[in-house]
Amino acid sequence: MVADVGTLTERAKELAALHRGERPLLLPNAWDAASAQVLEGAGFPAIATSSSAVADSLGYPDGEAAPAAEMLAAVARIAAVSSVPVTADLEAGYGLPPAEIVERLLEAGAVGCNLEDSDNRSGGLVDPGRQAERLAEVRAAADVAGVGLVINARVDVYLHQVGTPGQRPLRRARQYLEAGADCVFPILVSDEESIAELVRDAGGPVNVLYQPGTPSLQRLAELGVARVSFGGGLHRATRALLQRLAERILAGEDPYRR
Amino acid sequence: MVADVGTLTERAKELAALHRGERPLLLPNAWDAASAQVLEGAGFPAIATSSSAVADSLGYPDGEAAPAAEMLAAVARIAAVSSVPVTADLEAGYGLPPAEIVERLLEAGAVGCNLEDSDNRSGGLVDPGRQAERLAEVRAAADVAGVGLVINARVDVYLHQVGTPGQRPLRRARQYLEAGADCVFPILVSDEESIAELVRDAGGPVNVLYQPGTPSLQRLAELGVARVSFGGGLHRATRALLQRLAERILAGEDPYRR
Repeated sequence: MVADVGTLTERAKELAALHRGERPLLLPNAWDAASAQVLEGAGFPAIATSSSAVADSLGYPDGEAAPAAEMLAAVARIAAVSSVPVTADLEAGYGLPPAEIVERLLEAGAVGCNLEDSDNRSGGLVDPGRQAERLAEVRAAADVAGVGLVINARVDVYLHQVGTPGQRPLRRARQYLEAGADCVFPILVSDEESIAELVRDAGGPVNVLYQPGTPSLQRLAELGVARVSFGGGLHRATRALLQRLAERILAGEDPYRR
Repeated sequence: MVADVGTLTERAKELAALHRGERPLLLPNAWDAASAQVLEGAGFPAIATSSSAVADSLGYPDGEAAPAAEMLAAVARIAAVSSVPVTADLEAGYGLPPAEIVERLLEAGAVGCNLEDSDNRSGGLVDPGRQAERLAEVRAAADVAGVGLVINARVDVYLHQVGTPGQRPLRRARQYLEAGADCVFPILVSDEESIAELVRDAGGPVNVLYQPGTPSLQRLAELGVARVSFGGGLHRATRALLQRLAERILAGEDPYRR
């Protein structure tokens, strides 16, 4: 179940390289072993987890309400059935010290992670300098472990800001990439102008969350986005289907009719 | 997370009573906390688990390949978010002694279970006398625990038999009900005549697995079926949806288009 350091190193390299292809890395988000197997079977070259979907599957709300051990056990179950690189959404890191984040990620078999600059207790943003420092510590711990962990640094300005974010997402993105992140993820950015600016000026790969309202996958590729992920969207779609099946059964209908 | 004996006793009574209503108990099968919450939210009065779906979600094939502890932990996560009775599909019982089956089920917060008369090692059927004895022991252990555990005894003749099952399912069903089972579950029975005969002559409530090819829910009600469950069917439908979403993404399309 636990991959050796050699395998993890190879998978981390594969995942990193997928951020530098000619086309964006399309990275779907799994929540359990079955969803990961469906996604790998469909042909995706890597699997991400979605913390909201994993937490929901385990019976917890999003926002670090689930114990880190349970979240990481779910990541381990996903990695155990995956022969492609797995990257884990670790929210803000569950208050774990950087060395422990790296150790537990690798133990779970993951070779990448999302870390967000939200403070799930206060509900606000973490100071960007402090977050850059934390990211640098995670990078240093990964260097010690000898695995080129792919760090995807979330920039949560769009998530928290009601008005116009202005230059703040870009400034944070730059800081995080300079601190050692491999990719930045300004979650909920959706207008072409902001996406283009981030791609042009952040200084590294940019991850966009695809959802209704964002440019098409084709357009995101033209804009130079390096990585497109889907968050809890795929899981929510399966929940919605189950809801429809349930309603049909309760109405006495065949749930499987076309 | 762990319900007290009083709550479990009440829920077991509720679940038992649902087998004696005017309409069949429609019992959908969950595989994780999220699916259980969707199903309870839709209005079902009880939740079953599907061992095949739970195992798939955890990354194991069906047929007792998953460790009992992992299967029971999944049941516990489901029961923890459910305020309706939960009944767990325990396959053939993972080789656990009857007292331990009851203890661990109740610890997980479940008040019912499926136990099958298949031998997952040999791939054949268990001797009906031996299975009846085992069911009687589970009943006795539940009596000691003071919770009226709802035992659903699977009759796997249709699952293993290539030719006509003849009287064997009925004989087994009778034996299991006499031994203390609350309901019998001749999985894969699909023709009206056999269903009607089982309902008429088994001597207790009959569970039919609904799937393409079985009579309609309305017809199953007319035939006097006490409980209709869905096995891994609902989970497979969500897997199939995820497969379609994955294919759309890989084709560069919007996965969420109608």
